[in-house]
Amino acid sequence: MADKLANIGVVGMAVMGKNLALNIESRGFTVGIYNRTAAKTDQVMKDHSDKKLVPSHTIEEFVKSLEKPRRILLMVKAGAPTDAVIDELIPLLDKGDVLIDGGNTNFHDTMARNAKLDKSGINFIGMGVSGGELGALQGPSLMPGGQKEAYDLVAPILEQISAKAPQDGKPCVTYIGPNGAGHYVKMVHNGIEYGDEELIDESYNIMRHVLGLSVDEMADIFKEWNKGELDSYLIEITADILTRKDDLGDDKSKPILDMILDRGNNKGTGKWSSEDALNVQVPQSVITEAVYARYISMMKKERVAASKVLAAPKADEQIGDKKEMVEKIRQALFFSKIMSYAQGFEQLRFASEAYDWNLQYGQLAQIWRAGCIIRARFLQNITDAYDKNPNLTNLLLDDYFKDIAAKYQEATRDVVALAIKMGVPVPAFSAAITYYDSYRSEVLPANLLQAQRDYFGAHTYERVDRDGSFHYPWYEEQ
Amino acid sequence: MADKLANIGVVGMAVMGKNLALNIESRGFTVGIYNRTAAKTDQVMKDHSDKKLVPSHTIEEFVKSLEKPRRILLMVKAGAPTDAVIDELIPLLDKGDVLIDGGNTNFHDTMARNAKLDKSGINFIGMGVSGGELGALQGPSLMPGGQKEAYDLVAPILEQISAKAPQDGKPCVTYIGPNGAGHYVKMVHNGIEYGDEELIDESYNIMRHVLGLSVDEMADIFKEWNKGELDSYLIEITADILTRKDDLGDDKSKPILDMILDRGNNKGTGKWSSEDALNVQVPQSVITEAVYARYISMMKKERVAASKVLAAPKADEQIGDKKEMVEKIRQALFFSKIMSYAQGFEQLRFASEAYDWNLQYGQLAQIWRAGCIIRARFLQNITDAYDKNPNLTNLLLDDYFKDIAAKYQEATRDVVALAIKMGVPVPAFSAAITYYDSYRSEVLPANLLQAQRDYFGAHTYERVDRDGSFHYPWYEEQ
Repeated sequence: MADKLANIGVVGMAVMGKNLALNIESRGFTVGIYNRTAAKTDQVMKDHSDKKLVPSHTIEEFVKSLEKPRRILLMVKAGAPTDAVIDELIPLLDKGDVLIDGGNTNFHDTMARNAKLDKSGINFIGMGVSGGELGALQGPSLMPGGQKEAYDLVAPILEQISAKAPQDGKPCVTYIGPNGAGHYVKMVHNGIEYGDEELIDESYNIMRHVLGLSVDEMADIFKEWNKGELDSYLIEITADILTRKDDLGDDKSKPILDMILDRGNNKGTGKWSSEDALNVQVPQSVITEAVYARYISMMKKERVAASKVLAAPKADEQIGDKKEMVEKIRQALFFSKIMSYAQGFEQLRFASEAYDWNLQYGQLAQIWRAGCIIRARFLQNITDAYDKNPNLTNLLLDDYFKDIAAKYQEATRDVVALAIKMGVPVPAFSAAITYYDSYRSEVLPANLLQAQRDYFGAHTYERVDRDGSFHYPWYEEQ
Repeated sequence: MADKLANIGVVGMAVMGKNLALNIESRGFTVGIYNRTAAKTDQVMKDHSDKKLVPSHTIEEFVKSLEKPRRILLMVKAGAPTDAVIDELIPLLDKGDVLIDGGNTNFHDTMARNAKLDKSGINFIGMGVSGGELGALQGPSLMPGGQKEAYDLVAPILEQISAKAPQDGKPCVTYIGPNGAGHYVKMVHNGIEYGDEELIDESYNIMRHVLGLSVDEMADIFKEWNKGELDSYLIEITADILTRKDDLGDDKSKPILDMILDRGNNKGTGKWSSEDALNVQVPQSVITEAVYARYISMMKKERVAASKVLAAPKADEQIGDKKEMVEKIRQALFFSKIMSYAQGFEQLRFASEAYDWNLQYGQLAQIWRAGCIIRARFLQNITDAYDKNPNLTNLLLDDYFKDIAAKYQEATRDVVALAIKMGVPVPAFSAAITYYDSYRSEVLPANLLQAQRDYFGAHTYERVDRDGSFHYPWYEEQ
């Protein structure tokens, strides 16, 4: 055992845990490390013998290696493995110690664990970590939720290891809220990420199948787009992907993209995000369509069969000037992205009320400005919107976003209408424009719905001219 | 206590339980009845003194009043109240007795209860009941799931009380499958019902706000539509609703529809259906958009505020001949309805595999032909499709549906494109056409998605030219 007690301990030496440990160490902290399989710990020590790492081979030894109050970051597999480590740790910990789960955990589990541990006086933080392996090492975006006093104990470390926003150098971490708030916000971040990716993919698909552009041409277009208001990590890597050639096939001049099978996998967080949107009763159609787009992409065999028998449209539309159309697609992409974020932030607002979290929306956009997958220039506009009005109901009502929507809606309508007429699927784009139109509809046809429900199920209806619930005598003779 | 033992008992004398008891009695059975509050039981006896009903004031007395093996239908509130009654009943029942939960229960609960009771040898059937109060009395559609041998014990009664299909007089009940299968199928039925309603409501909205038709004109149109392939209960009541005048306001010549507030309520089963579509990983966008449409309709205050600041399109589109457009809307409605059912039946197929239920899809359409809210002529076409090919992957691949889709897709594209250009929200219509286009796409842009995921998260990708998982060296110098 080392002479000096470690400032913080990390459990789990898979790539994310190892990289976070190294990141913390690089900021001047001594880090205790532990892994169920000791060989992994030994390997880390061998690879990084010059670092202030304190290895342990047993969990008891590991706990003893930490200064008090102990700060322990769990980077193990979500679910049962996380519970197993927590159960091992509990008897070894003291009141006031802080456990941080940095795994990909469902917020319901985090809420339950926080409540359970709170009884024994042990603090529990559920922390979303975004940025992948590289982010973990160099600076991720961190979304910690749990006891505020526990956050204060770890904040000095988290602020140092997190990414810093290019705009003002502020750390991409803040206290999110009680119990499951951190993992919830990470979940919505991932849902938004699904939406961003699907919208980019639909843009690519329209350019390819409606405009007939080549992969090279599209690489230039995305590179150009990344210089403007769409400037973001996902646009940047898309531009790069489009330039890459196949590294494995016979013909190394082919774009790698054309060698990749179109089955879009998922690890469940986008699904969780849609599930809870359904639960807190907020419309989140763009992200949900992105989740469904992955599901339908997985049905490759079915699609190949269907493509041979299901009729395509005649598709004799006039496409007009290609350059003009590319600009319209850019506008449609930014417009739809704004709708997706408007929905995502409405979801956060509904969840904050449902779970009593008091989320600070502007700060969330602020800590997403660097480190995470959805980092983008326009997150600053979201922060600005909430700075101007912390009680903003919907992003669309902020002047900046309202004006963009007004300017770009026509292009979006043109692109969606053209794609639909040409038979090119645009599920997320069309969800975005129909959301805009639903949201700005003073009157929706739900009056007819309420009449139907009252007719067959006596569910009653509300009236436009007075308060109360009413039932119409549908079955009486007229 | 009566001399003769009752053939079946019903617990819960609220309107659904009472009406089902009277329905059963009317088929020649003696029915034991019990309600937690005795006054309700007494009231039923007072109102129906001539009926073969055997009332009990205690649950012990009730159980003793039934012939063995006992058949008990629970018609109590879903959730804790249902558990409470089950817990009271268990010690009084014998092996081989059959408990039927006819409540609006989540299939997860039914699976858990079935498993729990199965250990004690008591059969448990979770049964979906559709048709509302009137259906319960005169003939509902019944969806029972549980032990097959338990179903056989109650089948003679269920077949008699259920609705009969107009096509062939067959009873609208069949054995659905093990444990939660019945309540699952009812849940999907309700999801489909949400979809049907939203599609009708969008059709109405387009006719009203794009074509400027009056409520009277639309009443005639829906009446006309109900004579053709759209013939269904929901179209029928919509036509009727459109003819009804306000019964409460100052001006009794106004359509009731215009007095009904456009806030669309929900009781959760549509949401459950979307939740499980997300869970079994099947695209179910039309129903989900219908759920979201209800949520957004509930945000009335927000919408009124947004309608004053968010820009509408110029909307200088040529609408053309109105009559032609009405026919296009009819085609779009039928096309979209088919997409919704194609998705619903795919969900049933995915669920059947996930939960090991061996669902018989054709039989499900068969028992929906009468009694339930989604009863419609075209359900016969679904039954026919599965009769022809019990292993049909997707309804769209059946000749009848494939041909309708081919014929009606152009009209659907025209209607959706026009509505989007005019700013009239069509979330479910556009989900339907984009689903069609996604499903018939041999190649979707998920190749780009997989590249993105491999880029930022090393999630690997599959290739078009060989099996296996690959990782591209994105970070190596080119």
